[in-house]
Amino acid sequence: MVSTGNMLILEKSTPQRPGGLKQRVVSTLLYCTGEMQQLHTHMQDKFFLLQLAEWCLRGISRVILLNNPLSGALILAALLLESPWQALLGMLGLLASTFTAIIMGQDCEEVSSGLHGFNGMLVALLMGVFSSAGDWYWWLLLPACLGGAATTFLSSSLESVLGRWDLPVSVFPFNTVILLFLACTGTSNPYFPNYPAQPPGAPESTNHTKLHVPQLLQGVVLGVGQIFACETLGPSLLILGAVFIFSPILAVYALLGSGISTVAGLSMSVQHSFLYSGLSGFNGALGCMVVGAFYILSWRTHLLSIANALLSAYTDIALSNLLAVLGLPASSWAATLTGTLMLLLTGENLKEYRIPTGKVTSPEQNLHSHKQWSAANTNATDV
Amino acid sequence: MVSTGNMLILEKSTPQRPGGLKQRVVSTLLYCTGEMQQLHTHMQDKFFLLQLAEWCLRGISRVILLNNPLSGALILAALLLESPWQALLGMLGLLASTFTAIIMGQDCEEVSSGLHGFNGMLVALLMGVFSSAGDWYWWLLLPACLGGAATTFLSSSLESVLGRWDLPVSVFPFNTVILLFLACTGTSNPYFPNYPAQPPGAPESTNHTKLHVPQLLQGVVLGVGQIFACETLGPSLLILGAVFIFSPILAVYALLGSGISTVAGLSMSVQHSFLYSGLSGFNGALGCMVVGAFYILSWRTHLLSIANALLSAYTDIALSNLLAVLGLPASSWAATLTGTLMLLLTGENLKEYRIPTGKVTSPEQNLHSHKQWSAANTNATDV
Amino acid sequence: MVSTGNMLILEKSTPQRPGGLKQRVVSTLLYCTGEMQQLHTHMQDKFFLLQLAEWCLRGISRVILLNNPLSGALILAALLLESPWQALLGMLGLLASTFTAIIMGQDCEEVSSGLHGFNGMLVALLMGVFSSAGDWYWWLLLPACLGGAATTFLSSSLESVLGRWDLPVSVFPFNTVILLFLACTGTSNPYFPNYPAQPPGAPESTNHTKLHVPQLLQGVVLGVGQIFACETLGPSLLILGAVFIFSPILAVYALLGSGISTVAGLSMSVQHSFLYSGLSGFNGALGCMVVGAFYILSWRTHLLSIANALLSAYTDIALSNLLAVLGLPASSWAATLTGTLMLLLTGENLKEYRIPTGKVTSPEQNLHSHKQWSAANTNATDV
Repeated sequence: MVSTGNMLILEKSTPQRPGGLKQRVVSTLLYCTGEMQQLHTHMQDKFFLLQLAEWCLRGISRVILLNNPLSGALILAALLLESPWQALLGMLGLLASTFTAIIMGQDCEEVSSGLHGFNGMLVALLMGVFSSAGDWYWWLLLPACLGGAATTFLSSSLESVLGRWDLPVSVFPFNTVILLFLACTGTSNPYFPNYPAQPPGAPESTNHTKLHVPQLLQGVVLGVGQIFACETLGPSLLILGAVFIFSPILAVYALLGSGISTVAGLSMSVQHSFLYSGLSGFNGALGCMVVGAFYILSWRTHLLSIANALLSAYTDIALSNLLAVLGLPASSWAATLTGTLMLLLTGENLKEYRIPTGKVTSPEQNLHSHKQWSAANTNATDV
Repeated sequence: MVSTGNMLILEKSTPQRPGGLKQRVVSTLLYCTGEMQQLHTHMQDKFFLLQLAEWCLRGISRVILLNNPLSGALILAALLLESPWQALLGMLGLLASTFTAIIMGQDCEEVSSGLHGFNGMLVALLMGVFSSAGDWYWWLLLPACLGGAATTFLSSSLESVLGRWDLPVSVFPFNTVILLFLACTGTSNPYFPNYPAQPPGAPESTNHTKLHVPQLLQGVVLGVGQIFACETLGPSLLILGAVFIFSPILAVYALLGSGISTVAGLSMSVQHSFLYSGLSGFNGALGCMVVGAFYILSWRTHLLSIANALLSAYTDIALSNLLAVLGLPASSWAATLTGTLMLLLTGENLKEYRIPTGKVTSPEQNLHSHKQWSAANTNATDV
Repeated sequence: MVSTGNMLILEKSTPQRPGGLKQRVVSTLLYCTGEMQQLHTHMQDKFFLLQLAEWCLRGISRVILLNNPLSGALILAALLLESPWQALLGMLGLLASTFTAIIMGQDCEEVSSGLHGFNGMLVALLMGVFSSAGDWYWWLLLPACLGGAATTFLSSSLESVLGRWDLPVSVFPFNTVILLFLACTGTSNPYFPNYPAQPPGAPESTNHTKLHVPQLLQGVVLGVGQIFACETLGPSLLILGAVFIFSPILAVYALLGSGISTVAGLSMSVQHSFLYSGLSGFNGALGCMVVGAFYILSWRTHLLSIANALLSAYTDIALSNLLAVLGLPASSWAATLTGTLMLLLTGENLKEYRIPTGKVTSPEQNLHSHKQWSAANTNATDV
């Protein structure tokens, strides 16, 4: 499929007719979408720092199932807009985990496609979000580095286990490490105090007030931003744009999943603040996107992605309620667990659409390759 | 072994001497016991609704490790006697999960033997049992359907994982989904409120009163009924009868396990109400039956089933105490976990008695096949 | 490697020059260190009780990753010095689990090297430590026996699962069974009451007092003793001596890990009593030793053992805080989990140093065999 992808890009970038501004714009746009394999090939003989920058940007985009340095750059811009301090922490975690992977001798291809960075980045970012010590509390750089490195150990180990079932490591390391960090420090630690997590289902007097529909709709968009803990509209839209660059289909799925998840939240009478801030939406968005990324698009898998968004949303409410008893957030456990389940399904009607983990690219590319492959197969059968 | 089973049934149903009422009664009785493979073969060219009814009845009996539509019908009668509303919910969950399995294209043989229905049925049934909104609260049909469908996703996924060790999916999906549902809704949800779970080990003033032995003995029988959340004697006896039809050995194991489990409860000074209602007994009953169903009967495996009943009973008390902190019940986690452990044992003295998961039928049939096989082997060695 | 080991021992014990007291002392010392395979071979035709004694002593030493009956005897002496009652319980659990393994027909080689005893011993020992009913409470012998037997079931089952990834069963059974026992009985059980576990991170007024450095250093040594729940200096030193006999390298790692773990505790402002008693140190000590035992010594693996000590220490604080909410101790979950993760690492730079689980002996022996093997390989390449 990689070779098919390259072929496709060659076709795209070959100027059929020389000249024409429109032509060039289209060609540049096409160059920037999808996996940007061409850039990856270009960079291989460049200066190490430039290469590292590409790996890191890909790593940032990996969090939300993308693999595109431009998307990574857009998300980084969104994070800087949201909070420069948290963005700094995230970058530090990203570097820490990437360097740990290099030192440990992890597979070079994996490192360069950002697979060993995104968990570290999320851990460090969320440490900043949950810290109640305020911004620019420099001691936090220490756990950010250690936490980032720890995710690489977990990724490396989980790979051996999950690989048996052709499952991706996904954000399991992030979820584990952030939970351990928050359980380790707690809310009253003298060095690293954190905010306690609130249960979504707590009875609230304000819940009797009428639902504010525009805020609810904004919450759906914020749900996409909440994957990176962004709670404002601007950064969330930037992140949505980053998804759109890699794959318009995934962008639609992100919004769809967030919407379904918000409806699920309504059905369980979750606190309004959770709905408005997008906290109810982000697990559904991720759950919907996982199916979109790992299955070839068809009506059946479309229904599956809706089912997984629902499952993910309800699981998130359940886990949040449970973990809140211990003062801990459920982060993206729900989407990670249900997403992993979806990739294990054995039903004949779904199994044939499942893309092997190593061959997953953007849904558009997957669809294209699948059609070519099907056509080739039909021809072969005809002959 | 299937062919052996069929052979056996053919032997049984072949009328050696024509006529005789007693003969016919015996022949009918033999027809109804065991797996009723003959009925299964008969049904294959019948109307779809009739087939579906057979699948569903088999599904009901699967909960308690049986595979017999008549047992399923008896259990359904018991449920209707206990509470028509809960029986309705259970049937809805059963249909929801069976249809989800059909849509997902799960293995036809598995669906028709009821393997994709029993988890959905239990989830929906327990939703009704835990709901504090009263009977005939129609909104509950919605989560019953969704929960039923969710169990099929889990079954399908867990199959890929557990299949590696030749383990059955068992009631893992039910236990997971019901726990998530109860954690999601909680006790004060405005739409779906539930009763909170009580810890079995809570100190109680009534514990100082003398133990009422007849009630305790009744609790042992109720332990079998509690597998389907039945708390009255009539339905429990019907369920015990359903087990007896499929396999008298399993019926003995169910009572034995429930008894051992009650003794374990006494040794931990569990609340008397738990002992009298059978809540202390049902995990032990299931634990004992699992070994009875998956191992060929012998003195060694008999001891193993007693050991597993004990292990299951104590694990249930521990898990119930832990989950009660979160207001959740331990349902049948204990029996499912310890039963799964028992199927993984590597000891030479036990391993040879383990029946491969796909070949499990009734203990009587297993024993018969094993004897035939041993005899054949001995002959082969003699020659 | 076993043959290499025997060869090595033969070389050692062959008296090159007859006579000489010093010679004899050295020869005896060499005989007692490492795995003492020679004794094992000698014992094979001896009286059963003598053999059983050797198995049990090896079992005791297995807790702390050793395999040497003399180390086991030293540790037993330490336990008797600490508390004769707890030592008795431990021995009972050891015998219960060893006999269960024999009855179940577990692999003879495994039983005789003590692999099926150490979990039972730890469970029974810790039951005594946590019991608030005082010493010589004879009823505790019952759960000690049952708990010991239960660990054998768990070991046997987990072996099938973990064996797929060439992982040792380690102390998973102990951790599971002791957690279930404590959750089952609780603090107010009329028959088996226990002390509640305290969270390490609880805010304490005494934490404002100045740190007492000599006590802190003593805590580092006590950390090694705490692996066997020893809280006094004498037994801890004896246990450290037992480790030294088997392998000086492991003894250094034990102290190093305990020290790192104590520093980690300081960085999280753990209660001073935890630091002084060694409770903060023992998971780090175990974590450090696991890497030392399962990886060939080199600078890379040395760094890995430090990293694992840190990871293990922080995980322990997190788990202790979480489980303390339920009144339960984290025992050695942290070291067991992180140690297992370390054995799964896929990085090229570390994987080559990993010793297959079945071939692990003392670090010195491993290093020796590796050098011989490397030399042989180099020669082969040269030719």
